[in-house]
Amino acid sequence: MKKLIYLDYAAASPVDPIVLKAMEPYFSDSFYNPSAEYLPARAVRKDLEAARSSVACSLGAKTTEIIFTAGGTEANNLAIRGVMEKFPGTNMVLSAIEHDSVIGPSQLYKNKQAPVNQDGIVDIAKLINLIDNQTVLISVMCCNNEVGSIQPVNKISAAIDVIRKDRLLKGNKLPIYLHSDAAQAGNYLDVHVARLGVDLLTINGGKIYGPKQSGALFVKTGVYLLPQILGGGQEYGIRSGTENVAADVGLAKALSLAQERRQSEFHRLRQLQTQFIGLLEEKIPSVIINGSVKYRLVNNIHITLPGKDNERVLMLLDEAGILAAAGSACSASNEEPSHVLMAMGVSDSFARSSIRFTMGRDTDLISLQKVIAVLCSLPI
Amino acid sequence: MKKLIYLDYAAASPVDPIVLKAMEPYFSDSFYNPSAEYLPARAVRKDLEAARSSVACSLGAKTTEIIFTAGGTEANNLAIRGVMEKFPGTNMVLSAIEHDSVIGPSQLYKNKQAPVNQDGIVDIAKLINLIDNQTVLISVMCCNNEVGSIQPVNKISAAIDVIRKDRLLKGNKLPIYLHSDAAQAGNYLDVHVARLGVDLLTINGGKIYGPKQSGALFVKTGVYLLPQILGGGQEYGIRSGTENVAADVGLAKALSLAQERRQSEFHRLRQLQTQFIGLLEEKIPSVIINGSVKYRLVNNIHITLPGKDNERVLMLLDEAGILAAAGSACSASNEEPSHVLMAMGVSDSFARSSIRFTMGRDTDLISLQKVIAVLCSLPI
Repeated sequence: MKKLIYLDYAAASPVDPIVLKAMEPYFSDSFYNPSAEYLPARAVRKDLEAARSSVACSLGAKTTEIIFTAGGTEANNLAIRGVMEKFPGTNMVLSAIEHDSVIGPSQLYKNKQAPVNQDGIVDIAKLINLIDNQTVLISVMCCNNEVGSIQPVNKISAAIDVIRKDRLLKGNKLPIYLHSDAAQAGNYLDVHVARLGVDLLTINGGKIYGPKQSGALFVKTGVYLLPQILGGGQEYGIRSGTENVAADVGLAKALSLAQERRQSEFHRLRQLQTQFIGLLEEKIPSVIINGSVKYRLVNNIHITLPGKDNERVLMLLDEAGILAAAGSACSASNEEPSHVLMAMGVSDSFARSSIRFTMGRDTDLISLQKVIAVLCSLPI
Repeated sequence: MKKLIYLDYAAASPVDPIVLKAMEPYFSDSFYNPSAEYLPARAVRKDLEAARSSVACSLGAKTTEIIFTAGGTEANNLAIRGVMEKFPGTNMVLSAIEHDSVIGPSQLYKNKQAPVNQDGIVDIAKLINLIDNQTVLISVMCCNNEVGSIQPVNKISAAIDVIRKDRLLKGNKLPIYLHSDAAQAGNYLDVHVARLGVDLLTINGGKIYGPKQSGALFVKTGVYLLPQILGGGQEYGIRSGTENVAADVGLAKALSLAQERRQSEFHRLRQLQTQFIGLLEEKIPSVIINGSVKYRLVNNIHITLPGKDNERVLMLLDEAGILAAAGSACSASNEEPSHVLMAMGVSDSFARSSIRFTMGRDTDLISLQKVIAVLCSLPI
């Protein structure tokens, strides 16, 4: 069988063998309910709490600030619905290029979307201008899942701090929280919550070589939110359900490995990214590189091939064993053009000629050269 | 190391090796996002849909009626919050002995609790009496997780049908749905949705030798409910998030195995249950068996040892390598006596002297005889 060239790591990553090995004991041997009182169950609880501490450590947070969830989508929903239902009648501000799992819940409440520039980077001044004295939540992702643009989260945090102090002076007691979806950030960016300046942060295991539907929400001490899944009171009462210890241990291991390998992968992929873009521009002069080149995830290359139908290009790449995407896999079945590209001012027809390549641990120069060769040979 | 005698299968079951084997390909090999368009991802989607069909088949449902969730707690929350938020201002009726993941969300809405008799079985007439013309949801579990009492779900369904017809005649257009939490039912009871007569049914993988936080909600065609986790629109738009294919495949396999083995396990455990109760009554004459003997899960033995502190008994059993519980593991850390026993009219002091043994695939007569021997030798 032909070796596949996988370039859709933003959609899903394989579970790292080290991660799977860490998870294995919790399926059939240490399967005990961590809330049970007997000693073998207490040992499982200890391992669960060690995983929580490990996630906290990766984020520079306290152990008690980590809520395990079943993935990034649930964590985003918990952050937004949890805060907005705690403070009814208030509003939230989000960037126009958030993931559907942020945009979806935001639409249940009063919300305003901040625009981005043509590089896919949120305009801080315009975002801050949308904040009024009833705004309790700002949600801006660490980096975009489609075009890889890195958002100025810590600068937004600094600007929010000014508003926070002003509210104090004016006696407005409503809090103002900054949430960031770091689903795509874990492999390549610093996700230290204090350096980012966030009050809530979403972590997603499925994109960092951890198991699917593993995830966590960082909830800074003192942040109020309502639980969204009620029951036995697990996860400090914020998220009930018998803990998925295997997934939680897997997430912790995946996150710590990703952060450990971050620097070396950053440099390796930065070089590949530059080479790939160089080759693309050399061999296909009409190509357009979408999104910021400077403030961009090192594993992301998002291009427009003017006049080409991206569905058809992807099909031909697929036939050649090259797996790439038109955009977010989550909305792959959606006929609408990408809301991210629309927000960046990309025309409808260019959006329909756009392809996302996202690299990962197995990507090398030879595979990228093959992609270029196939793209050049396309009968279209 | 001493072989442990595990008698807390209602709290957690180990993943069956056959189930784990079915899950394995989806961690690192077939890890693709099932929403992606390339062929290897479509193959994963096909497997996911085959798992959905298998769950549907086990329940006698249509494939499109199965929504995968991250476990039973989430499925119960989706059923209750989903329906109650679809019909604001209405009310729901539930039994007084539901699991916390049903009681918790019910308390967000107008709700009435139907009493149970001293056997832990819901009183149908009293439950039906609580239904008014604004009731849209009834939630009664298939069987209780603490005392194992089996509820007359199909009789409740028949009574609700009469109300449904009456509403039609009177022009009341509000629907009336019957939800049942079958988290503990999969191993020993028929979970055929038409025979139960339910509109919504919760399935939980973690109690039927499947993975933790695997689960499904059966939603009968035509039942309206609002999604609770919003985003990419997976699971027919009812429950977003990149699908946990490994868990969904594992759940399907676990449920089909459980239903396949149901008859033989039923007879084997019914015999063990009778023997265990016989031995208990013979060796410890003061013992009280709680809950119905006739309408009871075959794996459940729930006893009161008058005058004994259950925490202390459990600790001594634990030291002897016998793992049992005071009640629901989910509320194990809760200092309140069990709401189930309270609803059955058990006194506070008897509740604090109660122990639950739940048997499973590894339980045999020799281990039960050891439990009896240890109970008889307790220095208390």
